[in-house]
Amino acid sequence: MGIDCGSEATGYGVIESDGVEHRLVATGAIRTSPKRPFESRLAEIAAGLRRVIAEFHPESAAVEEVFHAVNVKTALKLAHVRGVALLAVAEAGVELAEYSPLEVKTSVVGYGRAEKHQVQDMVRSLLRLPERVESPDASDALAIAICHATHEATHRRLATT
Amino acid sequence: MGIDCGSEATGYGVIESDGVEHRLVATGAIRTSPKRPFESRLAEIAAGLRRVIAEFHPESAAVEEVFHAVNVKTALKLAHVRGVALLAVAEAGVELAEYSPLEVKTSVVGYGRAEKHQVQDMVRSLLRLPERVESPDASDALAIAICHATHEATHRRLATT
Repeated sequence: MGIDCGSEATGYGVIESDGVEHRLVATGAIRTSPKRPFESRLAEIAAGLRRVIAEFHPESAAVEEVFHAVNVKTALKLAHVRGVALLAVAEAGVELAEYSPLEVKTSVVGYGRAEKHQVQDMVRSLLRLPERVESPDASDALAIAICHATHEATHRRLATT
Repeated sequence: MGIDCGSEATGYGVIESDGVEHRLVATGAIRTSPKRPFESRLAEIAAGLRRVIAEFHPESAAVEEVFHAVNVKTALKLAHVRGVALLAVAEAGVELAEYSPLEVKTSVVGYGRAEKHQVQDMVRSLLRLPERVESPDASDALAIAICHATHEATHRRLATT
């Protein structure tokens, strides 16, 4: 399971994978209204993630590291959401992995500075979907899940050779 | 209830107050080991706060706004903990209030640049305790609670005149 944290939309993507072939299981985004108090939005995100975890029982979950280069205020808001996401994962007893945005893009597109739409195209292609996943948050979450599945498989291969 | 968020120690302080006279109900700090994975520490903090809220049913809870002047990395870590604290408060249906560190110090010591030990002394004095609350995290949480109680009472007085 990949989780793309955001206070307005937190994307999730659940895949089945052997590290080479990936299959989409579920994807979507938990949207919260900017008009609601921030703590209520955190509660909605937590509830949404718990629901997805309870339904699909992922083996492991991956999130991106906080990228604080953009804007401190945005990064701090994101870190609150990320705290709630890590909590949901930890409380469900699901193993957690973290990747930098660069690792995710490199793993999925083969190029760390890839644009949003390139990530969406590669996610579509790698999951052999008839069309792009429309929501960029859902698509990013799938990219994180694919990155994690690929890394895990590499680790397993290295461990057995 | 006041909550002083921190990844190593999250202080809490529960008081009874009419806005002028304050009485200590409970205080302490939830300590987590830096050796444990961060997400497990978040889970410990959430469990600790939920326990305190369930035991004392606070009418409202107050936290400090994130102070990001110090160090971005520290502020981002703190924001994760704060996300978890806000979640615990929201999920318990407890009303949330936020104050800047300046407001808390001004409210408790009457001086925004007060030193840690001055806050500890004033908390002791305002709660008429025989001695200082040893843990600065617990004492800071009580200061936040006192600040909130004082502000709430002022608002109520203004509303009825």
